[in-house]
Amino acid sequence: MFLRIDRLQVEMPLPKEPDPAAAAVVNELMGGRFGEMTTLNTYMYQSFNFRMRDKLRPFYALIANIATEELGHIELVGAAVNGLLYGADGDGKISAGDAPFESMFKSTGAGTNYHLNGPHGIMAVNNLGQPWRGDYIFNSGNLILDLLHNFFLECGARTVKLRAYEMTKNPAARMMPGYLFTRGGVHAHAYALALQ
Amino acid sequence: MFLRIDRLQVEMPLPKEPDPAAAAVVNELMGGRFGEMTTLNTYMYQSFNFRMRDKLRPFYALIANIATEELGHIELVGAAVNGLLYGADGDGKISAGDAPFESMFKSTGAGTNYHLNGPHGIMAVNNLGQPWRGDYIFNSGNLILDLLHNFFLECGARTVKLRAYEMTKNPAARMMPGYLFTRGGVHAHAYALALQ
Amino acid sequence: MFLRIDRLQVEMPLPKEPDPAAAAVVNELMGGRFGEMTTLNTYMYQSFNFRMRDKLRPFYALIANIATEELGHIELVGAAVNGLLYGADGDGKISAGDAPFESMFKSTGAGTNYHLNGPHGIMAVNNLGQPWRGDYIFNSGNLILDLLHNFFLECGARTVKLRAYEMTKNPAARMMPGYLFTRGGVHAHAYALALQ
Amino acid sequence: MFLRIDRLQVEMPLPKEPDPAAAAVVNELMGGRFGEMTTLNTYMYQSFNFRMRDKLRPFYALIANIATEELGHIELVGAAVNGLLYGADGDGKISAGDAPFESMFKSTGAGTNYHLNGPHGIMAVNNLGQPWRGDYIFNSGNLILDLLHNFFLECGARTVKLRAYEMTKNPAARMMPGYLFTRGGVHAHAYALALQ
Amino acid sequence: MFLRIDRLQVEMPLPKEPDPAAAAVVNELMGGRFGEMTTLNTYMYQSFNFRMRDKLRPFYALIANIATEELGHIELVGAAVNGLLYGADGDGKISAGDAPFESMFKSTGAGTNYHLNGPHGIMAVNNLGQPWRGDYIFNSGNLILDLLHNFFLECGARTVKLRAYEMTKNPAARMMPGYLFTRGGVHAHAYALALQ
Amino acid sequence: MFLRIDRLQVEMPLPKEPDPAAAAVVNELMGGRFGEMTTLNTYMYQSFNFRMRDKLRPFYALIANIATEELGHIELVGAAVNGLLYGADGDGKISAGDAPFESMFKSTGAGTNYHLNGPHGIMAVNNLGQPWRGDYIFNSGNLILDLLHNFFLECGARTVKLRAYEMTKNPAARMMPGYLFTRGGVHAHAYALALQ
Repeated sequence: MFLRIDRLQVEMPLPKEPDPAAAAVVNELMGGRFGEMTTLNTYMYQSFNFRMRDKLRPFYALIANIATEELGHIELVGAAVNGLLYGADGDGKISAGDAPFESMFKSTGAGTNYHLNGPHGIMAVNNLGQPWRGDYIFNSGNLILDLLHNFFLECGARTVKLRAYEMTKNPAARMMPGYLFTRGGVHAHAYALALQ
Repeated sequence: MFLRIDRLQVEMPLPKEPDPAAAAVVNELMGGRFGEMTTLNTYMYQSFNFRMRDKLRPFYALIANIATEELGHIELVGAAVNGLLYGADGDGKISAGDAPFESMFKSTGAGTNYHLNGPHGIMAVNNLGQPWRGDYIFNSGNLILDLLHNFFLECGARTVKLRAYEMTKNPAARMMPGYLFTRGGVHAHAYALALQ
Repeated sequence: MFLRIDRLQVEMPLPKEPDPAAAAVVNELMGGRFGEMTTLNTYMYQSFNFRMRDKLRPFYALIANIATEELGHIELVGAAVNGLLYGADGDGKISAGDAPFESMFKSTGAGTNYHLNGPHGIMAVNNLGQPWRGDYIFNSGNLILDLLHNFFLECGARTVKLRAYEMTKNPAARMMPGYLFTRGGVHAHAYALALQ
Repeated sequence: MFLRIDRLQVEMPLPKEPDPAAAAVVNELMGGRFGEMTTLNTYMYQSFNFRMRDKLRPFYALIANIATEELGHIELVGAAVNGLLYGADGDGKISAGDAPFESMFKSTGAGTNYHLNGPHGIMAVNNLGQPWRGDYIFNSGNLILDLLHNFFLECGARTVKLRAYEMTKNPAARMMPGYLFTRGGVHAHAYALALQ
Repeated sequence: MFLRIDRLQVEMPLPKEPDPAAAAVVNELMGGRFGEMTTLNTYMYQSFNFRMRDKLRPFYALIANIATEELGHIELVGAAVNGLLYGADGDGKISAGDAPFESMFKSTGAGTNYHLNGPHGIMAVNNLGQPWRGDYIFNSGNLILDLLHNFFLECGARTVKLRAYEMTKNPAARMMPGYLFTRGGVHAHAYALALQ
Repeated sequence: MFLRIDRLQVEMPLPKEPDPAAAAVVNELMGGRFGEMTTLNTYMYQSFNFRMRDKLRPFYALIANIATEELGHIELVGAAVNGLLYGADGDGKISAGDAPFESMFKSTGAGTNYHLNGPHGIMAVNNLGQPWRGDYIFNSGNLILDLLHNFFLECGARTVKLRAYEMTKNPAARMMPGYLFTRGGVHAHAYALALQ
């Protein structure tokens, strides 16, 4: 069972001006093969299918807790993309202005789709506008293999975040991959310890 | 931000004997086009992208709350599928025995994949083993259109649950669509009221 | 511009008893890679994009006419699948009885999906329940290459129809591929002549 | 059975100069999730699978007639895209000049594919070059649910047309979504009445 | 540059009787996410994109050599599936008899497709008939991450082979995963050493 | 069984300056529907499934030999894309410098993905970044139909190479389609002779 608290995991500064190109890059961290949708759902399904929970309690707790933290991450990435698309108003909140559709569809190869079929916000797609797929989840039911995969997944996700970081100079856009990068490092370390 | 409580939303009785065919049917309610992954992620992304939250607070709260409830639903469907695959032990918990792989891959057209590539448990796929897709999410950013869609989605999801219900005689398998059917009815009604 | 006449291209006898397994085989002739959706849409798009229509009038007319005939074919395959699913009533019309869902989902690997997500009738999918795709269309804009492709497509479609024919003993189910097989032969011949 | 008349449903003015960027936007109205391929095939399959036609004649006629009208719409969108790609010659017909491939592949993220794999004309893809899929069709076999869906589909399609309209200043490009927008409004109204 | 020698890497005994169900299971080892198409192409592309080959010669040689060996593996899996489909004739070669189409389409959920659209032999699909995808390849260009992935991939592939092994009692069908399992163990070990 | 020789089929001059836009165009010749992955795997699978090899030896040899040559082609396309991305150093080898990520993601609609998820080199995707699919392979098991398809495939592949050639002025980028175009012409001719 889950509860939702109407607050983000961390506070994020918003850029003063919209930056749709940066928003499109950050969207990869949501719906790409190594994005937060993949880490969230992989750990969530691994926790759903975890057997012998009493006997293997610490491993179950590790996976289930990281899964819950990842829920907060998809919320955070969503907030970051919206903040980058609209910029901040005078109170530091997301501006209430109209969708910057002209700059949206010029920003990347997938930009037109953000306007035509999207919510003018975050989408569950990668940087090319290809939808996230349920078979990005890895869950073999073999605990050691699943932990090995999770360690690899976190290492792969770090590489993509680093590359996203390099693609923008916008400090607000860089803060998001920076934060997720740090948390991913903690998770990779935890899975490595669990493997041992 | 989200918290997870180590308890299901409702208590579910487990079948005494494994029933892989029923498990495969219930899996549709997770990863099918009208399954819980679609309702969960549709409402979650609509809440992420909801603008002018202060002014439209009741609508935001409606969508965000149902999204959170749906998190509990995917957990519940996961537990139901595992319960049906393994059956109950003497204490009423999921049996710790080996995966019933022979009966798994005989149960449906997608059955072999549960054994070969799956966790011997719930997967984010439909009844044919096709992965759930991020573009099943509908989020236009136009509140009225999104509410109209949500009303339609809940009606469509009810139809699929009813058909899943018809496909099995197993009381434990029937309980899950029955419960979700009732909750879906409440959601459909709520979206209809919001539309008005 | 198109007109629709409320009559099928040819009369088809209906089976007295439902035969869902045969229906599932015939559905391949609709939504498979070499099914009628592919021939219809390939020729339709080739006619939409045909340039210099005045100068190349006979070739344009050939492709546009076959495209129109294929519209009648998808209607025919739809009627055949519905006839096989429900059987005939006393008047020789499609029976008005309930959907035979139990036999539907036992009939093939894709059978469960006909019940859960389908109309209890024809779907735009292949024999595995995989959706027809717009990139099955071939249209290069080079007339000679397009005609060569069309000749190949008709030959490939004939092979699939022959194999569908072999898969059922049901005379009503066999009539459909038999009829389409004959028309396909005429089309293949016409494209071969046009190539010369 | 269908007849084809060698004339468009409405006359359309052609732009004097090619406008590939506008062509790419209008292509979304053909092969996107809410494009004419989806409305056409959804209503076509609903008409194929319509049961008890005698008893429910007005509803069958409504769906079958709109399906036929949609056939004319895909033809119209095809003509519009070709007109925008090549522009008009002195007689007001589509220019017979060479394909403007350089401007084509600069126009959008999907532009290169129009040249490499396309007919230098309309394709059954969305604005990202992703192929139209047969599972965009919704047809549950439950008439009320199908009508509710159709009402939602027309509302969604109107939103996409409006957004396409905003994306171009070209009067010829704007005429197409404008016309389809009007017809879509009539269809949405008709489905709403049928639902009542 | 590559040379082909008209001989398999290892000799394989053929079953006396066709065993289409076993053939369908072995096909997963070709076109599944963890099949030989994935290992072959992952290592092949990693070798194509390997930079600083002089400086990192042993690592390049390792990956390039395993890629070449995997070419022999896809050939071997192809021979195994054909052997299982047709059985041996008196000389121990693959029988020249007709395709056993009736048993083919009864063998698995994907069986009908082997007959309708396939070569009556091996296909580049998984056990559900879903096509192999080019994005199953992992190649980040970061050598350490690629080696870590390769180690994970070989471990995952071993699990699938083991499960395929369990799904058939046919000694000829079991020999193939058994052989690949052994070679996969060598590869996993080599990648682990390279990582160190 | 296959051997690999550490040398390309033909020598290729490298451009002095990186040309990422040309690299992206050449990548289509690898992973597009009519790229080398399709010709390679189509002929490879046709050779795996070729029956009655003794009786039909010349046809088997033709297909198996072209398949082996295509292995060299994918290696060549891989080398060309890497050469275009990095340019030559003073010794005429591929430069060892850093990945030109900024120019990569500006070059085409799919450019960002080369940086975020790719090896900074060749990928098994088309010009839109859509992955190559195993169902691009055509192999019916009917020799005449397969040869007819192969003739069509080579003609289609020639058209795409010609269009790729037109899209770049870079002599090094043009050499690759030029060479493949010539070899494709030989293959098309060979398949035509075999058909007769």
